[in-house]
Amino acid sequence: MSLPPEFALIARHFRGLAGEGALDLSDDAALLAPPPGRELVLAADAMVEGVHYLPDDPPETIGRKLLRVNLSDLAAMGAEPLAYLMTTALPRGTTPGWLEGFAAGLAEDQRLFGLHVLGGDTVSTPGPACLSLTIIGTVPPGSALRRGGARPGDDLWVSGTIGDGALGLAVLQGRLPGDAGGHLARRYRLPEPRLALGTAVRGLARAAMDVSDGLAQDLGHLLRAGGLGAVLDLAALPLSPAAAAVVEAESAWLPRLATGGDDYELLFAADPADAPGILAAARATGTPATRIGHFTPGPPEARVLGTDGQAIDLPRGGWSHF
Amino acid sequence: MSLPPEFALIARHFRGLAGEGALDLSDDAALLAPPPGRELVLAADAMVEGVHYLPDDPPETIGRKLLRVNLSDLAAMGAEPLAYLMTTALPRGTTPGWLEGFAAGLAEDQRLFGLHVLGGDTVSTPGPACLSLTIIGTVPPGSALRRGGARPGDDLWVSGTIGDGALGLAVLQGRLPGDAGGHLARRYRLPEPRLALGTAVRGLARAAMDVSDGLAQDLGHLLRAGGLGAVLDLAALPLSPAAAAVVEAESAWLPRLATGGDDYELLFAADPADAPGILAAARATGTPATRIGHFTPGPPEARVLGTDGQAIDLPRGGWSHF
Repeated sequence: MSLPPEFALIARHFRGLAGEGALDLSDDAALLAPPPGRELVLAADAMVEGVHYLPDDPPETIGRKLLRVNLSDLAAMGAEPLAYLMTTALPRGTTPGWLEGFAAGLAEDQRLFGLHVLGGDTVSTPGPACLSLTIIGTVPPGSALRRGGARPGDDLWVSGTIGDGALGLAVLQGRLPGDAGGHLARRYRLPEPRLALGTAVRGLARAAMDVSDGLAQDLGHLLRAGGLGAVLDLAALPLSPAAAAVVEAESAWLPRLATGGDDYELLFAADPADAPGILAAARATGTPATRIGHFTPGPPEARVLGTDGQAIDLPRGGWSHF
Repeated sequence: MSLPPEFALIARHFRGLAGEGALDLSDDAALLAPPPGRELVLAADAMVEGVHYLPDDPPETIGRKLLRVNLSDLAAMGAEPLAYLMTTALPRGTTPGWLEGFAAGLAEDQRLFGLHVLGGDTVSTPGPACLSLTIIGTVPPGSALRRGGARPGDDLWVSGTIGDGALGLAVLQGRLPGDAGGHLARRYRLPEPRLALGTAVRGLARAAMDVSDGLAQDLGHLLRAGGLGAVLDLAALPLSPAAAAVVEAESAWLPRLATGGDDYELLFAADPADAPGILAAARATGTPATRIGHFTPGPPEARVLGTDGQAIDLPRGGWSHF
């Protein structure tokens, strides 16, 4: 009996990604001996072709983005990566070349982030490709960063730069000049999960989450979780040189950067007295961290200040699927 | 700031399914303290509307089928359920009523099988609904059932009945007389994960897997894993009264039952000396177990005997997505 095509596909493209306990992806399930003295941290994110990535994105970056958006959830909890499971629903016409690129991207990121695949499923779909990944990480028990816990007066911090992902999508869709090989498009296709910073601010950050659906919308989650308000200062938003150039040419982009998605940066709260510690953690991990506002007593609403220091209304509430 | 629709949907339909460590499905990830002294068993299976279930299947059974096909993987490893994560990619037009039924079905099966949801993601898709579930179970370390390990001379066992799922699909598609409320259609929509039998034969079964893509094809996996051949006796196939009636009316159905999918029964190997133990485990768990053949020295091929005891060729190799 030869292998049916579905299993030959798994053997050819995915078996090389399997790690300890994955049983060569040829059993009904995988085995995992939980690391002693650690708590597990688990999250699952899905991506749909044409919704979360563009149909002509390189398959290498699609696999890596799928892994990285999930790694970003681990970063937000201050967790370290351990393993993942993945299901792929693929159109029947998916070529071996596409699969090869997809798996090669995953292999590269497995090396970069130190984790491996444990198991999953590969099925066909008459619709667009639909990818789902469950990530497993670990933390010392009780040390995971949570969304609740910020206090009035706390600084509001963000990692890296904001808006590159949304601008990168605009470039790739032809709504903004630029090219697919540039910084912005690359940031849309390849988010940078802030794992090192996330673990470095365990014990310092009072609340944390990752920014994926737009800074303003995600800040709303942090405020509801803590029952707090906040002031968000757009003038303080950390921008990459490429994003700064866009805003310089057309200032209307600035508020849109605070509502665009695909940032995958960490948004967190810390006691102002801990600012030196946060900055030291940022330096030690090579990850910029910037104060972009502060928390106030409730209600859970953000007051957004424009570059002139006056309160403004943001254009829309951020990305929602429904 | 009010909740955007996507998060309101999660809060309304899925928060009630969340268990300990799920953090109300409102953080970036879930926490899981691994049960001391147990090994984790993990699997992930996806289902696509129109491929794995019919668009007009009741939403209650769709959620339950998604959970049960994953629970069947745990049963095949002899594991006990602990928790799950789920991602749903849904068409934008999905109604609240559909979601309510889907979640109600999951709630019912959570109670039946003793597990809860830990986390997940809900996104939109322009294509058919695409559901993915990662299941987590536990076993005493080293006791998981595996696919390799059968020996020549071992009995080949199967749980429950074979062919109901494939016949149920034929009924629902109008290829076979019958009605949607009958036994066969119900078996297609609601597989029965054999968790109790799976744990009961730990230490007795030398190899095990679950039958999901057709008995003959899945037997092929067991044979390749063990480097063994087998004789499969179609006359011994356990049939439900409804399936037996179909075969009696048209005997050509019998070989098709050995290649149809959606059985979700356990297929396992055991020393003939352990047959009394297997039968006792079957009685104790209220799950039929039937000897349908035996293992032979390699190559990894199955010799299939028809009802007259003569070797036959099966019509096709089973379900493959590609």
